[in-house]
Amino acid sequence: MLSINLICVGNLKEKFWRESQDEFTKRLSAFCKLNIIEIKEQNYLENIDLIIQKESETILKNLKGYTILFDVKGKTCTSEDFSLKIDKLTNVSSEITFIIGGSYGVNDEIKNKVNERLSFSSMTFPHNLFRVMALEQIYRAFMIKSGKSYHK
Amino acid sequence: MLSINLICVGNLKEKFWRESQDEFTKRLSAFCKLNIIEIKEQNYLENIDLIIQKESETILKNLKGYTILFDVKGKTCTSEDFSLKIDKLTNVSSEITFIIGGSYGVNDEIKNKVNERLSFSSMTFPHNLFRVMALEQIYRAFMIKSGKSYHK
Repeated sequence: MLSINLICVGNLKEKFWRESQDEFTKRLSAFCKLNIIEIKEQNYLENIDLIIQKESETILKNLKGYTILFDVKGKTCTSEDFSLKIDKLTNVSSEITFIIGGSYGVNDEIKNKVNERLSFSSMTFPHNLFRVMALEQIYRAFMIKSGKSYHK
Repeated sequence: MLSINLICVGNLKEKFWRESQDEFTKRLSAFCKLNIIEIKEQNYLENIDLIIQKESETILKNLKGYTILFDVKGKTCTSEDFSLKIDKLTNVSSEITFIIGGSYGVNDEIKNKVNERLSFSSMTFPHNLFRVMALEQIYRAFMIKSGKSYHK
């Protein structure tokens, strides 16, 4: 079974975000082994460079398999393209790692190291909502592939 | 105070979607008079044309002020552009109506009648999640305008 890692910075404080994450985690269990890796959100008295550096160091240690960074400046695609991408990847890798950066993003080392940079939107979303959006699109990708009626 | 209407098709069944909507509704109350208008989701034994027609008829009756349809094929913009757009609109209209179509979209009459068609993403999101995404972006727009620290 395909392993999917989702690296996120910070945890979900509000119950409704945790419950929406739980809902998609449950649904995804039919299609993949999902592993949500929560990296500690750094503070460092608003020293942004240091925050990015420290968070990125921990993210780097967790990069495994085929790596896709969610990045507002990455390439865009449709849900159908995304589904096809995941389907093709299952032929070449048994593990895919998605990365959602922290509030201030990630360092250039990660940007250069990942296999792909993918953008869902030119708009900025908060990390908690974006985590749910990512899980939903991964779930949708499997549903499109399986030809089920979820995607219209 | 600016009135913002958000027309949606169908209701939020899951508690976590209702609670996330409540959170952004509460936050938005500082900036606008928000009115979420829930149109009944039609079924008609999967007759898609009839569903689109009936839902669109009800949406048309609720179009007021400056109207913006969320449409995957609309124009894209950044959160900063979106904030600027709402700010400029407050000078010409006291009411903005956003429309999230149903599962099968809206008819051409609505597409031609609205003032703008705006796309958040080339990906397809479910109506419940998209409703939260829209509320968050409207809230973010006000936070960007007010220069507060929410937007990074």
